[in-house]
Parts: sequence; structure tokens; C-alpha cells
Amino acid sequence: MHVLVLQGPNLNRLGKRDPRFYGTHPLTEVTSQIDTRAGELGVKVDHVQANCEGRLIDWLQEHQDDADAIICNPAGLTNYGLSLRDALSDTGLDLAIVHLSNPLGREPWRREDVFAEIADLYLAGAGWHGYVMALDGLHVRAADRT
Amino acid sequence: MHVLVLQGPNLNRLGKRDPRFYGTHPLTEVTSQIDTRAGELGVKVDHVQANCEGRLIDWLQEHQDDADAIICNPAGLTNYGLSLRDALSDTGLDLAIVHLSNPLGREPWRREDVFAEIADLYLAGAGWHGYVMALDGLHVRAADRT
Amino acid sequence: MHVLVLQGPNLNRLGKRDPRFYGTHPLTEVTSQIDTRAGELGVKVDHVQANCEGRLIDWLQEHQDDADAIICNPAGLTNYGLSLRDALSDTGLDLAIVHLSNPLGREPWRREDVFAEIADLYLAGAGWHGYVMALDGLHVRAADRT
Amino acid sequence: MHVLVLQGPNLNRLGKRDPRFYGTHPLTEVTSQIDTRAGELGVKVDHVQANCEGRLIDWLQEHQDDADAIICNPAGLTNYGLSLRDALSDTGLDLAIVHLSNPLGREPWRREDVFAEIADLYLAGAGWHGYVMALDGLHVRAADRT
Amino acid sequence: MHVLVLQGPNLNRLGKRDPRFYGTHPLTEVTSQIDTRAGELGVKVDHVQANCEGRLIDWLQEHQDDADAIICNPAGLTNYGLSLRDALSDTGLDLAIVHLSNPLGREPWRREDVFAEIADLYLAGAGWHGYVMALDGLHVRAADRT
Amino acid sequence: MHVLVLQGPNLNRLGKRDPRFYGTHPLTEVTSQIDTRAGELGVKVDHVQANCEGRLIDWLQEHQDDADAIICNPAGLTNYGLSLRDALSDTGLDLAIVHLSNPLGREPWRREDVFAEIADLYLAGAGWHGYVMALDGLHVRAADRT
Amino acid sequence: MHVLVLQGPNLNRLGKRDPRFYGTHPLTEVTSQIDTRAGELGVKVDHVQANCEGRLIDWLQEHQDDADAIICNPAGLTNYGLSLRDALSDTGLDLAIVHLSNPLGREPWRREDVFAEIADLYLAGAGWHGYVMALDGLHVRAADRT
Amino acid sequence: MHVLVLQGPNLNRLGKRDPRFYGTHPLTEVTSQIDTRAGELGVKVDHVQANCEGRLIDWLQEHQDDADAIICNPAGLTNYGLSLRDALSDTGLDLAIVHLSNPLGREPWRREDVFAEIADLYLAGAGWHGYVMALDGLHVRAADRT
Amino acid sequence: MHVLVLQGPNLNRLGKRDPRFYGTHPLTEVTSQIDTRAGELGVKVDHVQANCEGRLIDWLQEHQDDADAIICNPAGLTNYGLSLRDALSDTGLDLAIVHLSNPLGREPWRREDVFAEIADLYLAGAGWHGYVMALDGLHVRAADRT
Amino acid sequence: MHVLVLQGPNLNRLGKRDPRFYGTHPLTEVTSQIDTRAGELGVKVDHVQANCEGRLIDWLQEHQDDADAIICNPAGLTNYGLSLRDALSDTGLDLAIVHLSNPLGREPWRREDVFAEIADLYLAGAGWHGYVMALDGLHVRAADRT
Amino acid sequence: MHVLVLQGPNLNRLGKRDPRFYGTHPLTEVTSQIDTRAGELGVKVDHVQANCEGRLIDWLQEHQDDADAIICNPAGLTNYGLSLRDALSDTGLDLAIVHLSNPLGREPWRREDVFAEIADLYLAGAGWHGYVMALDGLHVRAADRT
Amino acid sequence: MHVLVLQGPNLNRLGKRDPRFYGTHPLTEVTSQIDTRAGELGVKVDHVQANCEGRLIDWLQEHQDDADAIICNPAGLTNYGLSLRDALSDTGLDLAIVHLSNPLGREPWRREDVFAEIADLYLAGAGWHGYVMALDGLHVRAADRT
Repeated sequence: MHVLVLQGPNLNRLGKRDPRFYGTHPLTEVTSQIDTRAGELGVKVDHVQANCEGRLIDWLQEHQDDADAIICNPAGLTNYGLSLRDALSDTGLDLAIVHLSNPLGREPWRREDVFAEIADLYLAGAGWHGYVMALDGLHVRAADRT
Repeated sequence: MHVLVLQGPNLNRLGKRDPRFYGTHPLTEVTSQIDTRAGELGVKVDHVQANCEGRLIDWLQEHQDDADAIICNPAGLTNYGLSLRDALSDTGLDLAIVHLSNPLGREPWRREDVFAEIADLYLAGAGWHGYVMALDGLHVRAADRT
Repeated sequence: MHVLVLQGPNLNRLGKRDPRFYGTHPLTEVTSQIDTRAGELGVKVDHVQANCEGRLIDWLQEHQDDADAIICNPAGLTNYGLSLRDALSDTGLDLAIVHLSNPLGREPWRREDVFAEIADLYLAGAGWHGYVMALDGLHVRAADRT
Repeated sequence: MHVLVLQGPNLNRLGKRDPRFYGTHPLTEVTSQIDTRAGELGVKVDHVQANCEGRLIDWLQEHQDDADAIICNPAGLTNYGLSLRDALSDTGLDLAIVHLSNPLGREPWRREDVFAEIADLYLAGAGWHGYVMALDGLHVRAADRT
Repeated sequence: MHVLVLQGPNLNRLGKRDPRFYGTHPLTEVTSQIDTRAGELGVKVDHVQANCEGRLIDWLQEHQDDADAIICNPAGLTNYGLSLRDALSDTGLDLAIVHLSNPLGREPWRREDVFAEIADLYLAGAGWHGYVMALDGLHVRAADRT
Repeated sequence: MHVLVLQGPNLNRLGKRDPRFYGTHPLTEVTSQIDTRAGELGVKVDHVQANCEGRLIDWLQEHQDDADAIICNPAGLTNYGLSLRDALSDTGLDLAIVHLSNPLGREPWRREDVFAEIADLYLAGAGWHGYVMALDGLHVRAADRT
Repeated sequence: MHVLVLQGPNLNRLGKRDPRFYGTHPLTEVTSQIDTRAGELGVKVDHVQANCEGRLIDWLQEHQDDADAIICNPAGLTNYGLSLRDALSDTGLDLAIVHLSNPLGREPWRREDVFAEIADLYLAGAGWHGYVMALDGLHVRAADRT
Repeated sequence: MHVLVLQGPNLNRLGKRDPRFYGTHPLTEVTSQIDTRAGELGVKVDHVQANCEGRLIDWLQEHQDDADAIICNPAGLTNYGLSLRDALSDTGLDLAIVHLSNPLGREPWRREDVFAEIADLYLAGAGWHGYVMALDGLHVRAADRT
Repeated sequence: MHVLVLQGPNLNRLGKRDPRFYGTHPLTEVTSQIDTRAGELGVKVDHVQANCEGRLIDWLQEHQDDADAIICNPAGLTNYGLSLRDALSDTGLDLAIVHLSNPLGREPWRREDVFAEIADLYLAGAGWHGYVMALDGLHVRAADRT
Repeated sequence: MHVLVLQGPNLNRLGKRDPRFYGTHPLTEVTSQIDTRAGELGVKVDHVQANCEGRLIDWLQEHQDDADAIICNPAGLTNYGLSLRDALSDTGLDLAIVHLSNPLGREPWRREDVFAEIADLYLAGAGWHGYVMALDGLHVRAADRT
Repeated sequence: MHVLVLQGPNLNRLGKRDPRFYGTHPLTEVTSQIDTRAGELGVKVDHVQANCEGRLIDWLQEHQDDADAIICNPAGLTNYGLSLRDALSDTGLDLAIVHLSNPLGREPWRREDVFAEIADLYLAGAGWHGYVMALDGLHVRAADRT
Repeated sequence: MHVLVLQGPNLNRLGKRDPRFYGTHPLTEVTSQIDTRAGELGVKVDHVQANCEGRLIDWLQEHQDDADAIICNPAGLTNYGLSLRDALSDTGLDLAIVHLSNPLGREPWRREDVFAEIADLYLAGAGWHGYVMALDGLHVRAADRT
């Protein structure tokens, strides 16, 4: 199994952003938590972070043909990134949308998540652990199908 | 650790409802999956299912004083069960809201989830596995605090 | 043919409520009008009235496996009883929604009927006779299918 | 008793329109079903179908002085035919609004029915049988008054 | 004079809920404050608290025939309890709606109070004293009429 | 000066409609009041009434080339007659919109008047006298220009 | 007959405001046009102009007891002057609302006229002549009643 | 204790306004009812009534430094008097908003009360007695604090 | 191939309407441009223009059985002609909606085009040439299918 | 150059209002800061503060004929002072709207600023310094024109 | 004549996306269809595709000075690409907006096309042929001007 | 003091865009005006302009650690650039949002500025001088704090 992990705008600043919402772990640490769990499950993982929607789409198009599933935290693009949404949806792959905090419990404009509609799994509020949970969930989902 | 699991209206019919959204497992099987994982984690679990909002609140009030966290699938109450929401919120306990399917990807009226705002963890789309993931998430969350 | 008749909150006060909207007949009289017509059609009918949404759902779940069709007047639940709606919809049976008065011609908030969308037959404004008409309609509908 | 039956735009194509919503019976057959039932009840019926709102109003104004009640399926005018609505409402006669399918369960714009507010009886989803049911309902209603 | 006091969902937890909004007095103390004032006024009072809308309606229907007025704090049902609203409105009795805190000054969704429209007296923000004020207000109102 | 007077759907029933809103004068009487005043002012007037929007447009297109101004009571078309609105607006003539009653003080849906935006004069609530006032107003307006 | 004429904020600048909407006549001239026509009709007229809503209400309360009808151009208060509206409505007198231009054909926020709902006569777009027309209309209205 | 009582626009006409909503007592009588109760409680009261929002603010600013609490019936300013709202809110004093009738049960536009959000006590529907109840409520509130 | 061309209300005045939006060509010229191109493509074309929605529907119903595709400019019916929409949609033929100007760039109410949802081709802003383009587009579409 | 400075309701309390939004400087100090800067620029300044919209309009009308530009902080009138807006707009002078705090970052109802649309300069959040900046901005703007 | 063709996000995947909406032709084929037609018309064409809004704007700014017209399919940017919209609008060139499918007939959020308002030609639903039609349309438009 | 100046999409075309809104000065000139004033104040300034939101975020993240304040004109991103908003907000630095024209006085969609809520200073309408004013304002703000 091969999973793509897309991290949206400003997530490269993780650990320096408001810790009430985003925790104290830098992105490198989160990445290595995902990789550890992936190793246990025998899953191959590729990572990308970008502040530009276009670069996330480019990267996704280049990697999607070999992949089985996607974990995406759209971050700042949550409310308007419909081009990325189209790109994710076009892949036809299993998709887990992950938010570190629970955007549904914050400012009203954060609640309208244009990615929610296309998510197979939707996880919010679990911090860095959410990525690991998403990996587990996608793994079980793939197993259920076979 | 002690976790309360509340299953909302019609979930006692699980396995007989539309399998595209709710899967083929009856509630007893889901319950035993949760118990198995709870045993592994050393977590005590109490279960309730009711079709009546008032009975869910009664049960919660009777059990909340010994509990550390709650897993709740509000099911049919998702869009209007504000009394249950108040009851959950009043406990001050960690709260995971779980949906078998992803209501954000279904009919518009299902998308307005009055429980979303108070959830510490929000999980949708993972089927029965979502309860197990929620248990894991609450366990990590408690561990993080200590 | 076997039909379930569900009467929602406050309909047990029929005959004592505002006669402009609800007529002067008590519920027992309405029930016996339905039974008379059912006898003529060779239809078996079971009745329930409850002020609690949960009790209506419990009763429906207990009776639905032997039934062919449902007549439901959601009364006070008309605008928010989405758990009952889910329960009705899950049965997969023919469903007639009946209102004594025409809620579409009254206060704005009464017009948003969450049961309307799932109704096979929708009847409003015919008073107690609406139940008899619904019985006829469901009977014709079943006959058309065979 | 004398009842006017008004059939709105495109209903002359009945039987050739989408059978999921409109059934397979041509308008002539529906008309004769109504006439048969009217004969049994001793009711005189006049029929009109037009694709033009103005012609329906003209016809109604010419016939209303001798009539006791109206059955109207506004069809394509359902969402905007306020001139016909005014004409119907001005007559002061008992009014049954009939829809072959249940517009409340279809596209959102079909749900806003400007005729619903003035209906004494509102029937939807019963196919051609809805007209017969409406005739019965108006007959009972008139009987109740005397 | 005979007054019915209905306390909605979660008010049995009074004194344990957020004291900024609900004060520190348990429900038993509030009840005895009401009874004391009722004694001074020569008013008979009956009390009920329930977490289930249906049980509140049942209780009201059983007691309403001997009563002159109602004090109701709909609590968690404030925003959607339209069945209870119908039941209250059907009694035709004087009705005081009481809120411990001022819901109009809190979260937006709490502000839409479906009971406000049918209240003869509307009191919010006075804590436990609000019930005593409501009793006084209903007493003066009855006196004004005679 | 040459003025066209267009009377919308159902106005041919004037005198038989609800007298609270439409008065007791039949259309012929209103027409002759207009003609009398027109005679005093030396204004030529042509009249039309139709229940069909298309016929009003046809008549307008045939008469507009010789006319200087228009008085129109859109009646039942008030809220949706955008084709007539386009036809009126295309003439480039002075336009008085007249309502017998004040639609702004009636049902909400009557308040959205699609003709209001293009009116040079807007008169409501003056009954049959409104047409005479409109004639005066258009006459003064023309005089002011010369 | 005795008519009160109330001119709202900024109308004292008439003749110096945008002539496309407000014409070129100063307020004194408009006043004298009204007085001339009033003299012809044998109507007594009192005038006031103020930039302050409170002063208009004070003046109205002092003069209303002897008056039969009111002409009011709320001008800048059109969209929010609900205190003046209450004061006008409390008088129980015939009320003509007059606008020099047609606010329904201008900026959207000008179209919501809180005075429209209580107007017996509503006139817009006729410039200074609108006051004269309003006087005529109120005169005919009073005559019709006697 | 020192309480300021502000009476908004048109309340000086009390007793002459629609008695269904505002009762039959003139303002002087209401004032003296408040003073009587204040005397019993040992509370000093100052009164003002004005039809102009600005004058209410001026008066409040001049008197607020010696006061402990405010009773305000914003009357006609209820829906838009945001300057008075700011002035009340700036004082930091306890605030009771009183309405003679229950605006939440009347016309829709009356229901949006811009003062509701800042009220410590909110009372509606109790007629002149509402002021006395507000005085009691503010007195208890002050006592609770000490 | 056989194409029906329907021209909505007021298009018979083409060439005399505002040239900024509708160009300077009369309808006859536009018709002959369409015929010329149709001749080149070997397509048979039938034309109709009417100011009455009902007449357009009548004509369409009479001609649709021999036709392969439709070009329709709904003109004044754009925002509310749902009966014509139903008639067009019922034919099951390829449908091109053409607007001379771009209604999406004009007044807000022109932008809500009830025909847009059922269009196979949607062309706006190309003036008379839009009809020729629509003919080409329908021709290619038919060719693609075979 | 001659500039008029209008200070809206409650700004005379500056220095005593919530310092998070309004700072600690009394209005006299702010005024003298403006005068100092005006002296440096050779600009004549006139000041007014009033709690009554009408008085601000009166003052503006009396002073506008000699002025070149206006600085206005509408304060409490921000959301509804359309009469003052009309008065400001009628002057045709350069207009700077100044807010001490940034209303766009506070409560939702503060964000709808009816003066924003007519502002040539719009400044918010700079505290007392905003008036000085506005003076500079108007000065540069005037210089640019010459 | 020189035309710029801008293809928005994900259009490089054409031929691999859902064929119901986007057809089976890869972008290279579409490009060559455009070039062929351009050759016939003697039009020079430049092409760009990018997944990043910023890169489309950069490219446009570099090429716009030599160009006469633009064909743009904003694809994923349709609903929010206001920076690209500004860039297109700033060029002052003729603009054709092209959509392969008809977004007005798909999901609601796809229908709000921020580019529609600035389009000179708007074409939707014609698949790859839409680009050729746009080229024709722009060519005729340019010819009409000269 | 160190200030970052971010110029959003299309501002590199300044001087070539519509001069009514954006003036005649190219960006280089604006930049040098800012630098001149910065020199006078002893402030260090860094500049960036990009058409891509992602590049603005990248640049900001690279420079923010040494900076004290930010001046940002989001230009085309004003209505949807929530990723840039998050990036700006995450810095915790003083923030001035500057618009050359006053977007609040232009098209409705320009008025919803997602950056307004997080601005410490908000300046609009002052053209190139707005940047200089913002620099002054940030300088005073920093001075006030020390």
C-alpha cells in the first residue's frame, strides 16, 4: 500500500503557530510519527508540504498514478481550495482529510470545509495523532475491500 | 480510564439499514469490537443505545461522575439534539463524536451537525472502525495530558 | 395488507384543540373511522399515539417487520423529528404523511416539513377524512404494483 | 355539486413524460377516471387543460359562477403562477391542489409551491388516483358543512 | 390559583452546571424558593423536571385541566421543542417563559427561542429569582383580569 | 398627449373581488372615471385588460409607437411579469405603475414588485382614484419637460 | 379638513441636492405649492421640517389631536425611522407617504422603506407635484368615507 | 441604591396607544407605581422620557456617575438604537430591559432587539408591572453581590 | 437534422431595443443568417417567436416529434419560465440556450437563468452570431454521437 | 483649506470608555492633537460632538458652505445613521471616515458600516492618531488635485 | 489577430478525468484542434496551462501587450480565482470564457462563476468544440468592429 | 524598526490599470515614496510583489523573524486569500492593510475583505499615499507601546 501525505499552507511553521490549536510538535516530528506507524503497517508513504495550491496539485498529479490512498490536511486552503479538491477527487483514490484542531468548533468561516464533501474519512481535533489514525483507517478500509 | 459510549436513535437497527452508509455489521458486533480494543488498552467501557433523547441524557447523567471520556454517535439527533449536546457539554469530559458514514458528504440537512462544535475529536466515514479509532484517540489524548 | 398508523405529540388531545385546525372529533373516533374503512378494504391496521419521539420509533421498530405501509401524522414533530424520519425511511415501506389542517397555509415555521421529502403520499387539509383517503391511496398503490 | 378541474402546462403530454414522476396514463384516461368517480358521487365535472396561464384564468372566470369546488394541478406554474393563484383565491370556492408526483421530494425549486398556501386540500404523490381522492375529499368536505 | 412549573432537560443538574450562567443553587433549593413565595401568595404549585420532551408533555396534559397558569424553563429544548410548544399553547393558560441566564446575550443558536412567541411573560437573566418574579407577574396578571 | 392604460390579470373581475383591497367599483366604471379626467386634460386614452401576459405585450407593441406615456396596473403579474416589464421598459415612455391597494402593506410575497424599479411614478393605495392621479402626474411631468 | 406635512432630514436643502433625484425647487416653493392647492380644497395645512427624528415626533404629538390626515416624506429616515413610524401609526390618521424620487428604482438599501407598510397612500417619483397629488388623494379618501 | 429609568420614544403617549399592547395606564401612573415600590425598597429613582435618542444619551451621561443600575424601555428604538445601546453598555451598570408587551410575539421586525444582548435582566409582556419586577430583580441582584 | 428555433417575448422588436445589449439587426435578418448557415450544413430549421409562454409551449409540442434539437432564446422568460423549461426538458432533445447579450454581466435578477440547468450548450454575448454558433455546436454534437 | 470634524454619539466620553478599543485620551486632548497638526499644515478646523444625529446634521448644514473637506467618526451611528450619510454625501466635499478601533475586527453588527460606501478615505484602528492621518490624507488629496 | 488561450488547474489531465463532463480527448488534441481552426482563420494562438493561479497571471501579463483577445477556461478556479479575473479584466481585451461541461447544470457551488460577469462571450457544454466556437466568435466580433 | 511590505497580485501593473481606482504611478515610484519616508523615520523596509499567494507566504515566512510590522495590500486576494491571512496572523506582528481605492465603495464582492478582521490599521482610498500613512501609523503605534 502506498499513501500520499499532503500538508497545506503554513503547516511548515508547525510548532511555532498557536499551540492551543496546532500543538507544539514541528512538522518533521509529525512526519516521523507517520513514517514509524507506516513502517509497522508495511505502508509506503510520500510527503509534501507547500504554501502554494498549484504546487500541491503538481506534486499530486506526478505521484498519484502509483498511489492507493491520500491523507491531506488542506490547512489554509480549507475554505476555498477547489482546484486542489478537483485534483484530489479526480484521482479516485481513498481520501482522508485531517485537521489538527477541530475547525467545526472555531470561527464560523473556518467551518465551511470544501474538502469535507469528498472525504472518505474525516478526522479533526486529534492533533498529530490524527495522521496516524488516518493511516490506520485507510489501512482497515483497504483491507475491508479485499 | 473509563469511557461511555452513547449510540443514538435507530443505531439498534445497524446491519439492517442502508449498507452503503451504515455497513453490514449489527450493533452487537460493533460493541464487541469496541470492547476488544478497550481490553487491549485497559479501558473500562459502558454502552447505551436509545431511540429517545431523554433516555440518553438520563443514562449519561447517571454514569458521568465515574467517567473520563465519552464516545457519542448522535445519529438521528445530529441536526437538532441540543438537549443532549448540553448534557454532553456539561460533563466537561473529553468527547469524541463518531459518524459511521461521512454526513458532510450526504444530504445538505445532514451536514449541519450541532454536536460538531463541542467535539474534541470528530471522526466520520470510517464505519465501525471509527469507534475503535475514537477510543485510541481519547487514550492518546489522556496520555498526552499526564 | 397491513398498515401502521402513527399519531404524533398532542394528537391524543384531538377534539380539545383549536377546532379551526383540528376539528371536533376525538382521536378514538378518528381511529374507529380508519378501522371501519380498513375492514371494508380487508386491511389490518395497528395504531399508536405518543408524545415522545423515542416511543414512536420504538413502536415502529417492533411492528415494521410485518407491515406493508405506514400512515404517519408527525404533528408537533413535523419540523424537527429527523430521528423518526430516519426510522420511517429505514423501513422501506410505502409512507403516507397526513396532516389534519394544511400546514403550508399556516405559520411559516410550520411549513418546513422534514417528513415531506420521504412521503410517497402527502395529504393535508382533509381533517379526519385524510386518514381514510391515505388508506385508499396506499391500497391503490399496492394494487398498482401487483 | 359542480367541480371544475384545471390541468396546467404540459399535462396534455401525460403518458409521454417521464413515467417515474408522471405515470403511463394519458390525460384522456385520467379524465375518464375522474368522470367515472364523479358519476358515482352525482357530481358534475368540467375539464380544461392549457399551456397558457391566461387561458386557464379566462376559463375559470367563465365557469366559476356555477361551480362549488375546484381541483387544480398547476404543473409547470407551480412555482410562479401568482395570477392563477389570485384567480383561484378570488372564487372563494373549496380548492384541492393535486400533484401527480410529490414535488416536496424532488428538486428544491419545485418545492416552493405558491398554490399550497391557499389549498383547502393538498394531495401529492398519488398519481392519477390523486384526482379521484381529491373529488372524494371535496365531496366529504361539502357534506360536512351541510 | 394553581400554577404548573416545568423544568426542561439538564435542569436537574442545576448547581453543578457552569455557575456563570446557571448559578450555584441546586434545583431543590430553587423549588423551595418558589414554594415559599407561592405560600405567601396563596398559590398552589406543582413541579416537574424531565430530560425527555415527551414526558414533559405527558405530565402537562395530565395536570393542565386544574391549572390556571404555567411557568416553563424549556432549557435544552429552547431552540427546537415545538411539540412542547404546541402542548403549552393548546392549554390556553397564562404562560411565563423563564431563563436563568439571558440566552439573547449568548451563542447565536441559543437566541432563537421557539417558545418566545407564545409567552405572555418572558423573563431572562434573573437566575433563580426569575421564577419568583414570574409567579408575582402571573399573580398580578390574574388579579388585573378579575 | 396619448396615454395607454394596461390592466393586468383578474382586474376584469373588479367589484367582485375582496372589497377591502379592491373597492366596489367595476372596471367599466374605473375606465370611465379615467376617460372623464382625460377629456378634461385633452389627453387621448387607450385601454386594455387581459389575463395573459403575452396578450398585454402584444397590445403594447401594437400601440406604443403613437403613445407618450403608460399607466399600468400589473395586478397578478406584479411579482414575476418580467417579460411585460421588459416590454414596458423597451418603449422608453413615461411609466406610472398603479396599485389599487398598497401591496407594501400586505402579504410579504406581494411586496416584491418587479415593476417598481422601472416606474417613473409609483402610486399605491388610492383605489380607482389612483388612475386619475397617475394621469395628472404624467400630464404635469410632460408639461415640466416642455 | 386639517393635514399635517412632515418633511424629514435634509429636505431643508431641497434645490441644492442632486437635481436628478430631488428637482430644482427649494422647500419654500414646494410648501407654497401645497398651500395653494390646500386653499383650493379648503384644507388647513401645518408644516414642519427637521433633521432630528425626535423633533418630528415631538411636533407630531403636539399637533395630531386636531388633525385628520398626514403627509410625510421620511427622507433620510426611510430605512430605519421606526420611532417615527410608531408615532405616525399611533395617530390612527390617514397617512400618505411621499418620495420625490422613486426609491424603489435606486440603491438597494433605499428600497427597504419601513414606512411603506403603514401607508394608506404611497406616492413616489412625482417630484414636488407628489405632495399636491397626496393632498388630492387624502381629500378624495375622506370624501369617500362621508 | 440609585436606579435610572429611561423611557423611549412615544411612551409619553402611554394610555392613548393601542391598549392590547400597551395597557390603559398613562405614564405618570406607571412612574408613580415605580416610585412607590422604590420607596418600599429604599431605592432612589430618577426618570426621563424622550422621543429623541440623543436626548436620552445626554441625560444618561449626566446621571450615570451616581447610579447603580438602569431600567430602560427602548420602545421605538428597540430595533436600531445602537448609539443608546453603546451609551448604556459604556456605563458598566446593571441593566434591565423592559417591554410592556412581548415584542417576540409580534411583527417580525419588532423581534430583533438590539438591546437584548447587553441586558442583565430581560422582561417582556408584564405591562406596567414589568418595571416593578425589574426594580425587584435589580435589587435582589445587588443584594446577591454583597 | 431538424432544428427548432424558439424566440421569446419582445425579440420581435429586435433592432429597436437597446443596441448596447441587443444589436441593430431586426429579427428577420437574424432568421435569415440562421437559415443561410443551416443551408450550408444541410439542416432543416423551423422558427417561432411569441410574447406568450403558452404559445411557445403549444408550438413546441406540435413540432417536437420530428425534431432533433432546439435553439431557444427565452428572453423575458429567462428568470421564471418554468413551464417552458418543463416543455423543453420533456422533449429529450439536444438544447442550446442562446442569449444575445451576456445576462451574467448585467442586473442581478437577470443572472438567475432557470433554463441554464437544462442546457446542453449555453451561449451568451455573441449577438446574432450566437445562433449560428449554436447551430454549429448542435451539429458537431450530433456528429460526435454517430 | 478648511476641514470640518464631526464626532458621533458617546465620543464625548472618550477616555472613560473601554480603553482596549478607545484608548485613554479624553476628547479634548484628541481635539488639540488635530489642531496642532492643522496648524502645521495651515488648515482651518471646526469641531463638533453630539449624541443626536439631527444636531450633527444641523451643524454640518450650517458649516458646509465654507468647507473643503470633512473628517467624521460616526461612532454609535455607524450602522444606521443614513440621514447623516445623506447629509455628508450631499455636501460633495472630500470625506474621511475615521474609527478609533477597527470595527471590522469586532462584533458582526459593527462591521456593517453605512458610511464606508461614501468615504474617500477610510481609516480604522489607529486610535487618536487616525484623525491626524486623515488630515494628512485629505491635505495630500487636495494638493494632488491642484 | 492574436489570441491567448489559458487553461486552468487540472486541465492537463484532460482525457483522464470523468468523461461524462470532460470528454475523452487529451489536452494536446484539443490544442491542435484550436490551432487547425486558427490556421484557417489566419489567427495566431499562444497556449498555456497551469495548476497555479499565480503562474497563469504571470504568463498573461507577459503576453497581453501583443494580443487582441483571450480564451480562458478557469476550470478549478471558476469559483474563487478573483486575482486571475482582475488580471483578465485589466487587459481590456475581448474575453471568451469556455467550459467543457455546463457548470450551470452541475453542483450548486460550481454555478457561481466569478468570471461570468466579465465575459464578452460565454460558452459552456460544447466540449473541445467550445474552444473552436470561441475562436470563431471572437473573430466575428473583431470583424464586426472594423 | 523593520517593516515588510507585501504587494498582492496585479500590483506590478500599477500605473497601467484603471487610473480611476489605482492612480497613474507605477509600483517602482510607490516603492520609492515608501523608502523615502522610511528613511526619514529610520525604519528599514523590505518589499515583495507576487501574483501567487504561495510565493507571498514563502517570502513572508522567510522574513518575518527579523520584522516588527507588516504593510500588506492583498489586492486580488482580498476576498479569498485565507492562507495568506493565516500566515500574516501567525506572525503576531503589527499589521496594516492598505487598499489604493476604497473597496467598500465599489462592487459588492470586493467589500468582503477577509483581511479586515486581523488588521491593526485599515486604510483605504488614499492611493499611493496610503502606504506612507500606514508607515506613520505603525511607527506611532510602536512608539506608543514603548
